[in-house]
Amino acid sequence: MAYTVTVIMKKKTPVRKVSSKKDYNKLALSLHKKLKGKLEVVSKVELKTKDDWSTLYTPGVGAVSSHLAKKPKEARDYTIKRNTVAVVSDGTAVLGLGNLGPLGALPVMEGKCAIFKAMANVDAFPIVLDVHDSEEIIKVVKAIAPTFGGINLEDIAAPQCFIIEERLKAELEIPVMHDDQHGTAIVVLAGLINAAKVVGKQMEDMKVVIVGAGAAGCAIAKLLYEAKVEDVIVTDRSGVIVAGRPGLSGYKKELSKITNPRHVKGEVMEAVTDADVIIGVSGPGTITRHHIEKMADKAVVFALANPVPEIYPDDAKRAGAAVVATGRSDFPNQVNNSLAFPGIFRGALDRNVKAITDTMKLAAAKKIASLVKKPSADNIIPSVMTPGLVKAVASVIK
Amino acid sequence: MAYTVTVIMKKKTPVRKVSSKKDYNKLALSLHKKLKGKLEVVSKVELKTKDDWSTLYTPGVGAVSSHLAKKPKEARDYTIKRNTVAVVSDGTAVLGLGNLGPLGALPVMEGKCAIFKAMANVDAFPIVLDVHDSEEIIKVVKAIAPTFGGINLEDIAAPQCFIIEERLKAELEIPVMHDDQHGTAIVVLAGLINAAKVVGKQMEDMKVVIVGAGAAGCAIAKLLYEAKVEDVIVTDRSGVIVAGRPGLSGYKKELSKITNPRHVKGEVMEAVTDADVIIGVSGPGTITRHHIEKMADKAVVFALANPVPEIYPDDAKRAGAAVVATGRSDFPNQVNNSLAFPGIFRGALDRNVKAITDTMKLAAAKKIASLVKKPSADNIIPSVMTPGLVKAVASVIK
Repeated sequence: MAYTVTVIMKKKTPVRKVSSKKDYNKLALSLHKKLKGKLEVVSKVELKTKDDWSTLYTPGVGAVSSHLAKKPKEARDYTIKRNTVAVVSDGTAVLGLGNLGPLGALPVMEGKCAIFKAMANVDAFPIVLDVHDSEEIIKVVKAIAPTFGGINLEDIAAPQCFIIEERLKAELEIPVMHDDQHGTAIVVLAGLINAAKVVGKQMEDMKVVIVGAGAAGCAIAKLLYEAKVEDVIVTDRSGVIVAGRPGLSGYKKELSKITNPRHVKGEVMEAVTDADVIIGVSGPGTITRHHIEKMADKAVVFALANPVPEIYPDDAKRAGAAVVATGRSDFPNQVNNSLAFPGIFRGALDRNVKAITDTMKLAAAKKIASLVKKPSADNIIPSVMTPGLVKAVASVIK
Repeated sequence: MAYTVTVIMKKKTPVRKVSSKKDYNKLALSLHKKLKGKLEVVSKVELKTKDDWSTLYTPGVGAVSSHLAKKPKEARDYTIKRNTVAVVSDGTAVLGLGNLGPLGALPVMEGKCAIFKAMANVDAFPIVLDVHDSEEIIKVVKAIAPTFGGINLEDIAAPQCFIIEERLKAELEIPVMHDDQHGTAIVVLAGLINAAKVVGKQMEDMKVVIVGAGAAGCAIAKLLYEAKVEDVIVTDRSGVIVAGRPGLSGYKKELSKITNPRHVKGEVMEAVTDADVIIGVSGPGTITRHHIEKMADKAVVFALANPVPEIYPDDAKRAGAAVVATGRSDFPNQVNNSLAFPGIFRGALDRNVKAITDTMKLAAAKKIASLVKKPSADNIIPSVMTPGLVKAVASVIK
């Protein structure tokens, strides 16, 4: 029997070279308007002859449908489920821009899907939701799950994102990952592994302060706990999160149990005194040179707010930081989720993994860190262009 | 500013020539297993350089997102919404095979999406649902609607399909069409227009009997009513549907108001006496030669059950039928929904049409009929390969 699987050849050339963020905005607006959407859904096989139709559609497809009705688990072998991920957002926390609604979120989700395909050959499709209540989002994602082999939650505001992810993980048999939490946490940990080497400290012994207790801050704190980093303090708008602080919400109460073992109280300034690492996941200006000056020698500063970091690298270095990372591509050491999520889902889909566990996240962080052969102050995190990146990350998802 | 929009070149060759339905089943199973899904989601532009990333993803995409948060209606100009249709099924009535569940439905929906792309360059994505209650399906489709420019409902059992479509049409601002109803009705009407010419009768004056009161039967009856065919009788398992018949459900009661003006009672046999047309949309064996022998001269028989028709063309002709159509590609006159839905959605997307109206459906049927230049007994319905088909149908959706 002779099959022909599609060969899709893409003739694509870069957009053009640009130099400033303002340029990117302008170019993005006109390019998006020209493209009218960044994705296409294409058939792997041609539909030309009657035989094509009768095999891929009726009557032949009926045999496949009947087979899957009896053995739904084999959908992995006969349908797009095996290689398809939903990129789901309700648009309540789009990039650092806030609640832009589902249509405001759509261009970002399309971009993420393009990255999934380009980096990991995962077929990802954007699903932006016109519901925002946690229970409703959970219901909708469960209802549409049969098509998909994995769910990538994206840009959903805290604390809803915690509930939604937790429930979907428990109630679905396919991997569900909120990338703003775990993608970020994995890459931060990867950077920290190498930063520790650069400054000559044991990572587990480092005192870490996380400024910001949103999706990313919480996930970083939890992953550092799993990585045996014992002295982690998280701060929010009301200051240091510490057990017994009045008015702590549910998830911050949980956080207080696994962080801040010295029971530090007060503001960021109290927390950063003698700290080895400060990780900003809040917004511009929340980390100042005064904070960094209070830190221990060879301070490590991750200023991850995007596009404007908590503090710019030059200012951080002048205040004494030895290693600085940001979320931006125009400075060294970019904490970029795209280092993690394509490989994680590639591995999960290939091995039919039911859930992304903490063990997998730790292994992914170590693997990403290991791709930097000789870590230095300006090179603690690999580039997304690193050859073999996706394969390497995918290899530890098992 | 230099843009480059993708050129996707597909090297595709036919599967192989086959001759029987059994062959198609076998080939479909092995081809689907080889393919592991018939669709791919690809990016229209490359993601290679930092500039590509910064324009299609952060930071540039942020400008597009912010713009759409302010002007969500412009999503049509900047996102995939303009060219993307959801093919939605809960798997309760897959082809003629019954309730196969969402994963049983997935191969069919993928095939439909492949047809959408191949015929009309519409990017269609399959959404199979793990909920089956009408209200829940309505909620889910409304929730995921922002990504899409249209909703193609498919293979949802009657009577739920009527409620779901009606509500979604009323509550969404994008076109929603249940193809098993309206796609079928449009192509049946197209065939009937030409069949009337072949037998030399006025279509409006023909007596029509529809055997089967499911999704297709109801929609055909309604469209014939819109087309001024006045004498239409619908039958179900309990016989002729007539006003006042005890136990008529809601939608059959509606149907009784616009059909059966002579108040015929009894079985199919009573209905077909002197009828000019019989349209089977039920199952094998529900139309017999005895029925056809009772019909008027130059009888027209549409036996649309698939894969086994109500009566085979040879048997129908021996009983006196002048024109016979089926749902199969291996007999003349195939009633094939693919003649209608690609062009209908193409037109609706291009012209930002909010709903597919009865006027559009009538115009589409007339347009499809007009593509057969010289109707004859074996040529009342054009082939899906007819050049210009999609463009012609799309042109009347306005």
